[in-house]
Amino acid sequence: AANKKLLVLAGDGIGPEVMGEVKRVAAWMGSQRAVGFDIDEALVGGCSIDANGVPVTDATMDKAMTVDAVLLGAVGGPKWDGVDFSIRPEAGLLRLRKDMELFANLRPALVYPALADASSLKREIVEGLDILIVRELTGGVYFGEPRGITDLGNGERRGINTQVYTTSEIRRVAAVAFELARKRGNRLCSVEKMNVMESGRLWREEVTRLHQEQYSDVQLSHMLADNCAMQLVRNPKQFDVIVTDNLFGDMLSDEAAMLTGSLGMLPSASLGAPDAAGRRKALYEPVHGSAPDIAGQGKANPIATLLSFAMMLRYSFDLGTEADLIEGAVSDVLDRGIRTADIAGTGAAQLVSTGDMGTAILEAM
Amino acid sequence: AANKKLLVLAGDGIGPEVMGEVKRVAAWMGSQRAVGFDIDEALVGGCSIDANGVPVTDATMDKAMTVDAVLLGAVGGPKWDGVDFSIRPEAGLLRLRKDMELFANLRPALVYPALADASSLKREIVEGLDILIVRELTGGVYFGEPRGITDLGNGERRGINTQVYTTSEIRRVAAVAFELARKRGNRLCSVEKMNVMESGRLWREEVTRLHQEQYSDVQLSHMLADNCAMQLVRNPKQFDVIVTDNLFGDMLSDEAAMLTGSLGMLPSASLGAPDAAGRRKALYEPVHGSAPDIAGQGKANPIATLLSFAMMLRYSFDLGTEADLIEGAVSDVLDRGIRTADIAGTGAAQLVSTGDMGTAILEAM
Ligand SMILES: CC(C)[C@H](C(=O)O)[C@@H](O)C(=O)O
Ligand SMILES: CC(C)[C@H](C(=O)O)[C@@H](O)C(=O)O
Repeated sequence: AANKKLLVLAGDGIGPEVMGEVKRVAAWMGSQRAVGFDIDEALVGGCSIDANGVPVTDATMDKAMTVDAVLLGAVGGPKWDGVDFSIRPEAGLLRLRKDMELFANLRPALVYPALADASSLKREIVEGLDILIVRELTGGVYFGEPRGITDLGNGERRGINTQVYTTSEIRRVAAVAFELARKRGNRLCSVEKMNVMESGRLWREEVTRLHQEQYSDVQLSHMLADNCAMQLVRNPKQFDVIVTDNLFGDMLSDEAAMLTGSLGMLPSASLGAPDAAGRRKALYEPVHGSAPDIAGQGKANPIATLLSFAMMLRYSFDLGTEADLIEGAVSDVLDRGIRTADIAGTGAAQLVSTGDMGTAILEAM
Repeated sequence: AANKKLLVLAGDGIGPEVMGEVKRVAAWMGSQRAVGFDIDEALVGGCSIDANGVPVTDATMDKAMTVDAVLLGAVGGPKWDGVDFSIRPEAGLLRLRKDMELFANLRPALVYPALADASSLKREIVEGLDILIVRELTGGVYFGEPRGITDLGNGERRGINTQVYTTSEIRRVAAVAFELARKRGNRLCSVEKMNVMESGRLWREEVTRLHQEQYSDVQLSHMLADNCAMQLVRNPKQFDVIVTDNLFGDMLSDEAAMLTGSLGMLPSASLGAPDAAGRRKALYEPVHGSAPDIAGQGKANPIATLLSFAMMLRYSFDLGTEADLIEGAVSDVLDRGIRTADIAGTGAAQLVSTGDMGTAILEAM
């Protein structure tokens, strides 16, 4: 088979370190499993602002639009806190999501048996937790117009953003969530704030209609966003798949991630619509941020980024066996007590660096 | 002193039961502490829809505008799920908040020593937790225009809501939060999503400016809303007072409430601006909902509503001693193992009904 074309955007902070381990695993896949990758690299976020004055260049966008998949590390840091809103590091990430039309963001929150004690929640509440949040990623208040700050005179200003969703935006992300639920526990919970927001009422109505039309075999429930924020704390294992909008998804997926107590373990996938040949544009990135405080010290946990690479194998290339290999190796290594600093609190037998963790996982593979 | 005028809006579900205990405590205050109350009562929510076709009548609004304080039970229930959006039970509550201009919603999340094990979080994470969330309550996406659902033809609809804040809306709620922080741990964390939303950027700028102008003695920090959703799970005791907007406050205060594991314990206050005589319009209500599944069975926990009454004594009438009496009695009763069903899991020596809990608290007073 022809080599798969990847664009690697390592970004800021610990991004380059954790992505270094991904490149080793990609090379291993080429030599041991005959799954070859052509890897191109470019800048995104703060490093791109420094080099090019913008958080992502048009040339990089062109590359992102043509490769088979994009791998992203992390963006941002205090160094760029002062830059103009329009060129802040996050704007690079938002442009990638929007221009690539990556409307479905998949965020699993999974508790590994070896790490169940890392959670701030009681063991019995989180042990065996396995939920998937599907977050709408190209709509809602993140991109709605009008937006901005207006000077009203007399020292008064007004800040505006617009929450907006259409039928087709809701249906396409809900369809992804229904499909994924079918492959898992067959239960989907749709989350909005329909008792206050008309956009949430439309969300509930459209999800309900799609369910009746095409997915009535999936068990569908609805929940208000504030209640969902509570239920994730009270009893997270009640959920299988959750589908929600961009802003609620931002908060609820971070809350769900923290339930596991090990952010350095959590991958994500952002997917577009399939084209005529069934191929989706896709971007894979860890849930954690750029962690500038530990950047360059070999302390970062590369597992979230490696698991993002595994998600890529599964979702973009249908290489389930190879994804299983990586995920299995991660479990093995954790069971043996090998830990980076962020997860050292839970049954560490051996504290290792970013690179040593990569080596341990490669050996387990 | 003249009797204080109260409007009691017991509402739906368990509202009338828990409010019954408040009326007993109010009567006790009259006979034992010479703090007299004239109590008027009216309908709000589903019961008002049934009786009057709207979730709150103009006549009730007139009363709410003239009394010294409003006490609310809870509104809503599945019975009214099908009513039109404009007259749903929640619209009554939202009209009260908006017309009374109750812009500052105070939601304490407090863990009682006797109930620390009720939490789904580990004891050491929540023991001694005492945070106060100040939520903006009359602005943002709850009330912003334009809003609604538009038919675009071809089976497409669009739902819109508007997130909007002005300088003065931000400053007045931040001022309340700064003042409250001064009376507590002197630390305020302001929460928004300024890396994505311009309204959040305005929020941060205005809070920062007010801090410099008038509250530089208070320790101010800023946090993104998604990170706050995480930090509340990871280490909630890092917070003293949190100030945030209407929608973020809705979710974060519910999340914080659930950290305590005992929703039936949590009161809230919603305050307006002081008038020339220093008096604020105010509404007090429990954080929990109307719990239609247990309504009318004497199972409901009246403590949240009794503590809301205590907040009223403190904030509306400066009766700190009387508020302390109620709060102390609640602690006593919990220490003695007296529990309603919702908190029975944690050291219950005696399981009691709504009325018996009220009696126990009255006796402890
Ligand atoms: C960095 C930021 C713009 C982003 C978001 O808000 O979507 C991040 O929090 C995330 O969840 O990926
Ligand atoms: C009932 C509902 C309208 C309300 C809100 O969203 O504000 C409730 O959730 C609350 O927090 O008081």
